[in-house]
Amino acid sequence: MAVTELTSSDLQSILQFTVDLAHSAGKIILDGSVAIQNAGSNVDEKKNSVDLVTEYDVKVEELVKKEIAAKYPAFKFIGEESYAAGSRSPLTDDPTFCVDPIDGTTNFVHGFPWVCISLGLIYKRRPVLGVIFNPFLNFLYTGIKNQGSYLSQNGGPPLKLPLAKSPKPLATLNHAQIAVEWGSDRSLSSLTKRSGSFHRLAGDPSSGVVKGRMVHSIRSLGSSALNFAMVAQGGLDIYWEIGCWAWDVCAGSLIAQEAGCTVSGSHAVFEATKSTPEFGQMTEEILTGRKYIVIRAIGDTELEKGADAQKRIIEEFYSTAEDYNVS
Amino acid sequence: MAVTELTSSDLQSILQFTVDLAHSAGKIILDGSVAIQNAGSNVDEKKNSVDLVTEYDVKVEELVKKEIAAKYPAFKFIGEESYAAGSRSPLTDDPTFCVDPIDGTTNFVHGFPWVCISLGLIYKRRPVLGVIFNPFLNFLYTGIKNQGSYLSQNGGPPLKLPLAKSPKPLATLNHAQIAVEWGSDRSLSSLTKRSGSFHRLAGDPSSGVVKGRMVHSIRSLGSSALNFAMVAQGGLDIYWEIGCWAWDVCAGSLIAQEAGCTVSGSHAVFEATKSTPEFGQMTEEILTGRKYIVIRAIGDTELEKGADAQKRIIEEFYSTAEDYNVS
Repeated sequence: MAVTELTSSDLQSILQFTVDLAHSAGKIILDGSVAIQNAGSNVDEKKNSVDLVTEYDVKVEELVKKEIAAKYPAFKFIGEESYAAGSRSPLTDDPTFCVDPIDGTTNFVHGFPWVCISLGLIYKRRPVLGVIFNPFLNFLYTGIKNQGSYLSQNGGPPLKLPLAKSPKPLATLNHAQIAVEWGSDRSLSSLTKRSGSFHRLAGDPSSGVVKGRMVHSIRSLGSSALNFAMVAQGGLDIYWEIGCWAWDVCAGSLIAQEAGCTVSGSHAVFEATKSTPEFGQMTEEILTGRKYIVIRAIGDTELEKGADAQKRIIEEFYSTAEDYNVS
Repeated sequence: MAVTELTSSDLQSILQFTVDLAHSAGKIILDGSVAIQNAGSNVDEKKNSVDLVTEYDVKVEELVKKEIAAKYPAFKFIGEESYAAGSRSPLTDDPTFCVDPIDGTTNFVHGFPWVCISLGLIYKRRPVLGVIFNPFLNFLYTGIKNQGSYLSQNGGPPLKLPLAKSPKPLATLNHAQIAVEWGSDRSLSSLTKRSGSFHRLAGDPSSGVVKGRMVHSIRSLGSSALNFAMVAQGGLDIYWEIGCWAWDVCAGSLIAQEAGCTVSGSHAVFEATKSTPEFGQMTEEILTGRKYIVIRAIGDTELEKGADAQKRIIEEFYSTAEDYNVS
């Protein structure tokens, strides 16, 4: 295959390879979990006492990197552990796998089965293929650019995303179920803005919570990739996070977009792009910008197109949640 | 069976009945989910716009109540929907089923598969049997007083809880993965105490967060019963919530206790009981007190018994999290 042009059929063959790879990785993750829960294992702290990495993150990334290099030697590779170890190639137009070997490492360490491997393929600086696999629940999410995205549970048939027959309505932010994360940046300045944002999202304005939006619910699940997948599926309405990385969101954003979701970046990126034709798509600027928002497919109503509702509700969200920079 | 004395063998037979009932209820829940996601359905607001109930909560409770009345006519019944409808019998020494037909109703409405039916049996004012079933993931948790608790995934064999071969250590609150919930009481006074507590739990004291505990992670999953079950399993270290009801925690607390967890109530209850022999067990006062904390089984170390570590870490938790009354 010439790496200068990836056809739709190339992508289908890459998807099969990537799904097989996810299953191989899943076995290591499951074995690692048993080992960690039963005997303890090497859990290292990265930037601080809550930013964790295990020997299994490294082991899975080594497997993935080796298999990709053997099958697609011309493809580039961006992985969380390689990046942490100093291998930081800039994004190019070449096909580039962008991989988080274990997304939800804290859950993994604690034995909470909300964990996945996330494998994205970037081509011409945009995600074009994504595979997210939770080996504990046996949930497999897949997507190819312009070919839709799917969920297969327990080896069952792939179900087109979103799971609802047609996208559900969503009138306002007040009706939303939102995913946010506490993350590993716990400095006073970041945390104050983050917890203040959560407080306003939850708060009842009629009881005096300033800018209170009283959303239906706030969830914190601990895996960015699975948050994107769950928004794609339709089980979460919005996911917002500051601080994650390209490998956390690459596969998920493709799966989400193919399910009719709108993806955007920071408050500033949203404002600057909301009236442009590319709005809603994952761009290089968003992918590497470490600030992400995604909203699920919304059905058209007589009064409003779903795409307009997505934009309006992100606007409402960003008027409530405060921007900050990772410290 | 005389209702004045329940033997261990009676409880085993009641467990089989209750598991069958959970599976029947699970079918209604799954069908209901498809109906709600595809066509919308009757979702009513209870106390406010985020306190939801569906026709399926009512339908499941009717089935459960009817089946119990047919099989165990002398048993009493406490159910969320019957209670809401005005049927509020006080707790007695009689065997009493305590049931949440759909725990995680907001998740259910939104199509997020973290939902269960929770069926507890109270006898002589203490939980003696519990069944929690998540039909979406096919996770079945069961427990009988003094006979251990188990998880069966996807119809597989029952695995004794906690899942680790022997309980894992937990040095301090800093190392904990904690579940909390935003709940439906969003008034300024409750919310300020709740979000302030979360802020301190997450915060880095070295960056200036007063009383910051910098816990490993905070999760919000939306089902009290599944939070208890996950603490029992060992995937969460602590779960704390103010505002849930006896039916949310009855089955879960029995399953948790049988897995070596320690259960307690409010700050005041914890202080008043921490040096008594019954500490760690679900009492009538805690069950009906609407304030709950549960911590997982902790392994003994050379320096400290696991039970002492559980008490010490709850103490640390309650010195960080602020008590408040549901408004």
